[in-house]
Amino acid sequence: MAKKTALPLSKVYQLIEPGPVVLVTTASGGRTNIMTMSWHMMIDFEPPLIACVISNRGFTFDVLKKTKECVINIPTVELAEKVVACGNVSGRKLDKFTKFGLTPLASSCVQAPRIDECYANLECRVIDGKLATKYNIFVVEVVKAWIDRSQKNPRTIHHQGYGKFVVDGGIIKLPSRMR
Amino acid sequence: MAKKTALPLSKVYQLIEPGPVVLVTTASGGRTNIMTMSWHMMIDFEPPLIACVISNRGFTFDVLKKTKECVINIPTVELAEKVVACGNVSGRKLDKFTKFGLTPLASSCVQAPRIDECYANLECRVIDGKLATKYNIFVVEVVKAWIDRSQKNPRTIHHQGYGKFVVDGGIIKLPSRMR
Repeated sequence: MAKKTALPLSKVYQLIEPGPVVLVTTASGGRTNIMTMSWHMMIDFEPPLIACVISNRGFTFDVLKKTKECVINIPTVELAEKVVACGNVSGRKLDKFTKFGLTPLASSCVQAPRIDECYANLECRVIDGKLATKYNIFVVEVVKAWIDRSQKNPRTIHHQGYGKFVVDGGIIKLPSRMR
Repeated sequence: MAKKTALPLSKVYQLIEPGPVVLVTTASGGRTNIMTMSWHMMIDFEPPLIACVISNRGFTFDVLKKTKECVINIPTVELAEKVVACGNVSGRKLDKFTKFGLTPLASSCVQAPRIDECYANLECRVIDGKLATKYNIFVVEVVKAWIDRSQKNPRTIHHQGYGKFVVDGGIIKLPSRMR
C-alpha cells in the first residue's frame, strides 16, 4: 500500500462531514476487531470531535467502553464488498482482519490498529462515554490523522439501507463562507 | 412542484444516513428561517431519532430552544446554489424564503414550514435539548415525513469544506444483513 502521511487535525472534518461509511477498529487483550459504521457526525472542528453511534449489542460497544480507544478508517468504493462483509458478522468469535484479508497497521497514539487498505485513518480517544447509556453515542476526539495523498479521487460510499450504497460522483464548487 | 406523499417513518433513516447537506427550517412569532446543516446523524430507526449540531451563534439555535420544532428538508444538487446562499447569511435580519426564491409549505404537525423545492421533508420535534449546552446537539424525533416519489434519481450533495461538494454518483447493491 502507499505510504500515508499525517493530515492536519483541522482538516479531519472534511473527511467525516460528507457522511461516508467507515470501519471502526478496536483492540483489547491481544484481539482486534472491525465494525462497519455509518451513523456518525462531526461535532467540533479542532480538536476534531466526532459523535459515533455504536450498537450496544455489538462487540465494539463493550471494547470501547473498556479501552476508550478506536481508529476510524475510511474505505473507498473498491473495498465495498469487505465493508459489507465486516457489517454482516460479529467479531466476538471471528478475526475479521484474517477472514476478509485486511492488513492491520500499528497506530501511533492508540492500541487499536489502522486498516492499511483504507485511504485515511483517524486515531481516536473516547472523551465522553456518558451518552452511550441512553443513545449508544460515544464522543471521540481525533488525536492523530493519516491520509494516502496518492489517491487523487477517493470515492467513498454512503449507505441507503439494506446493502444499497450511493458512490461519490462529481465535485461542484460554490463560493461559500461555510468552513 | 410535484405533490409529495407520506413516507413511512421506518424509512426515514435511508434519507439521513447517507449524509446529505440539508436545510433546517424553523418558525417563531410569525417569522420563518432556513439554516444549512451537514453535521447530523441517525441515532435510532423508529421512531426515527436524529442528532443535529446547530451552532449556538446562529438564529436557529435560539428558535429551536424556544419552539422545540423544525423541519429537516433534503435538497438535491439542482438547489446547490441556494443551499450555499442560505449558509452564507444569518436569518436574524433576512427572510431567506423571499431572498432566495424558496416556497414555504404548511407542515401538518409542526409550526415550522416545509420547503416545497426540496424532494423530502421531515417534520421534527426536539425531544432532548440538554446536549445543546455542551455540544450544540439537539436530539429530534421525526413525527411526519414527506417525499416526492416522482423523483426517481434524487442526487444529494455532501460538503467537503469551503464550498466543495461531492454529488451522489452511481448506486451499488451488495448482499447485506445491515438494515
